[in-house]
Amino acid sequence: MEHIDTIRALRARLAPLRAGGARVALVPTMGALHAGHLSLVKEARQRAEAVVVSIFVNPTQFDDPSDLAKYPRTLDADLAACRDAGVDFVFCPTAQEMYPDGADTSVTVGALAEPLCGATRPGHFRGVATVVAKLLGAVAPQVAVFGEKDFQQLAVIRRMARDLLLDVEIVGAPTVREPDGLALSSRNARLDPEARGQALALVRALDAAEARVAAGERDATALLGEVRAELSRAPRAVVDYAELRDPDTLEPAPARLEAPTLLALAVFLRPAAGGPDPGVRLIDNRVLPLQTQTRGDES
Amino acid sequence: MEHIDTIRALRARLAPLRAGGARVALVPTMGALHAGHLSLVKEARQRAEAVVVSIFVNPTQFDDPSDLAKYPRTLDADLAACRDAGVDFVFCPTAQEMYPDGADTSVTVGALAEPLCGATRPGHFRGVATVVAKLLGAVAPQVAVFGEKDFQQLAVIRRMARDLLLDVEIVGAPTVREPDGLALSSRNARLDPEARGQALALVRALDAAEARVAAGERDATALLGEVRAELSRAPRAVVDYAELRDPDTLEPAPARLEAPTLLALAVFLRPAAGGPDPGVRLIDNRVLPLQTQTRGDES
Repeated sequence: MEHIDTIRALRARLAPLRAGGARVALVPTMGALHAGHLSLVKEARQRAEAVVVSIFVNPTQFDDPSDLAKYPRTLDADLAACRDAGVDFVFCPTAQEMYPDGADTSVTVGALAEPLCGATRPGHFRGVATVVAKLLGAVAPQVAVFGEKDFQQLAVIRRMARDLLLDVEIVGAPTVREPDGLALSSRNARLDPEARGQALALVRALDAAEARVAAGERDATALLGEVRAELSRAPRAVVDYAELRDPDTLEPAPARLEAPTLLALAVFLRPAAGGPDPGVRLIDNRVLPLQTQTRGDES
Repeated sequence: MEHIDTIRALRARLAPLRAGGARVALVPTMGALHAGHLSLVKEARQRAEAVVVSIFVNPTQFDDPSDLAKYPRTLDADLAACRDAGVDFVFCPTAQEMYPDGADTSVTVGALAEPLCGATRPGHFRGVATVVAKLLGAVAPQVAVFGEKDFQQLAVIRRMARDLLLDVEIVGAPTVREPDGLALSSRNARLDPEARGQALALVRALDAAEARVAAGERDATALLGEVRAELSRAPRAVVDYAELRDPDTLEPAPARLEAPTLLALAVFLRPAAGGPDPGVRLIDNRVLPLQTQTRGDES
């Protein structure tokens, strides 16, 4: 495995591999790697001869400077994990490399980026779309792999790559969870033990909604009531949003659900001591498996 | 020469050439090709084994719908000119191909896109940066060639490609002129004979400014006065802008010029009959060759 800091050096290493017919897969990360990231590497490994993991904590996607400052940074462990996972190249650019002097170009994805995290984190998806466009420009992979835990991010990136006519396959990989169901996230490292326990409210709320749907519930308001009730059982959890949306367009779901529907959650786990710190923001989601009703079903 | 309509077909034709080591050059155009475009093809031809000319009248860069409607379209002549110029592939995508259903992503270049044409044509450079990013995505050339007549456009595209870390060389080619000095433009075809005569005011204004600078004038206000006096001798010319700017940053030039300075002009040639039609908008520019004063000069 090689640890590379500059775009020039990475291109120089990839060029002969490409010339020999190798496909290149990119797994963009912000480091603090966990088993979720490694599942993305596994997806990449199956689809390409050369696997690049980028590690770059992108400042432009943080709306909250303290969230950026507190984002975990564990480079040595990340490099060891990449080596163990069979990564070929770990690309760790500096901010100067990604945002050269005077960099002033941004990529904006329209309506898909507006609700959910786009509404509560102003500028977040502009930062994400811009840095991913840059990484795709720098690495020019045939495949790029992202986690489905960040459902809206994946949708925004798919749309961006499609709209900019990039010759890259965007692959989504399933969320990896702790044995008790908590979705893996680099931010989990910032949870104290009590908050870690209460963070299970997210997956319990998803489970509760899925169970209600399986039992025949189709009323959106009733489902969201159930979800909020489940979240409210965690006293340190403050709901950022809990919404039902179309999984493709991210438009609001109808009052009566009729097709597979995204349940998307974002919650702050507040500090035990209270105070102005908003705490640790966690997200999770599930596409609730409703049968799409077709005319044939009624005959 | 091949005439190709879809990105998929173009990629399929370019892939084996690339695999054989061929470099690909792209010359993006909106058609209505003239000798200026063909000079871009010549530049491309010298730098790559495969030359692609794209012809796409991009709706998103027209702030004025009537300007879009009146933009000349001469496909048969364009194809013949490309064949004669040794172009390998003419890529003529549909709007649907360039802006697939639901396309909602835009590329914005910051401060460089704000003055001059950016100020008087709202949204123009967002449209340009977005469509050029798409063409670079679709064709993935090693080289792309643009004319220096569109000075600010070239600056915006250079910045966009650099900021998005694209592995492409952006080449600027000198403005080609009629024997009497008028810069070639597809819009010249829309000038009636009187307006064609008065359009020479642009190059006369550039010449006058260059002569004054050669004679020692350094005062920006005096130079712009000379430029406006020259333009005012064409009664059907209405100045959109006439500005002195830093050629690299496009920031306003100082009151007393001290280094090479861009003189950028945009003029409407009004219809003979008057009326609400703004007429034909022409641009031209010159970097006035002032010596940069160094400390050594003073010793």
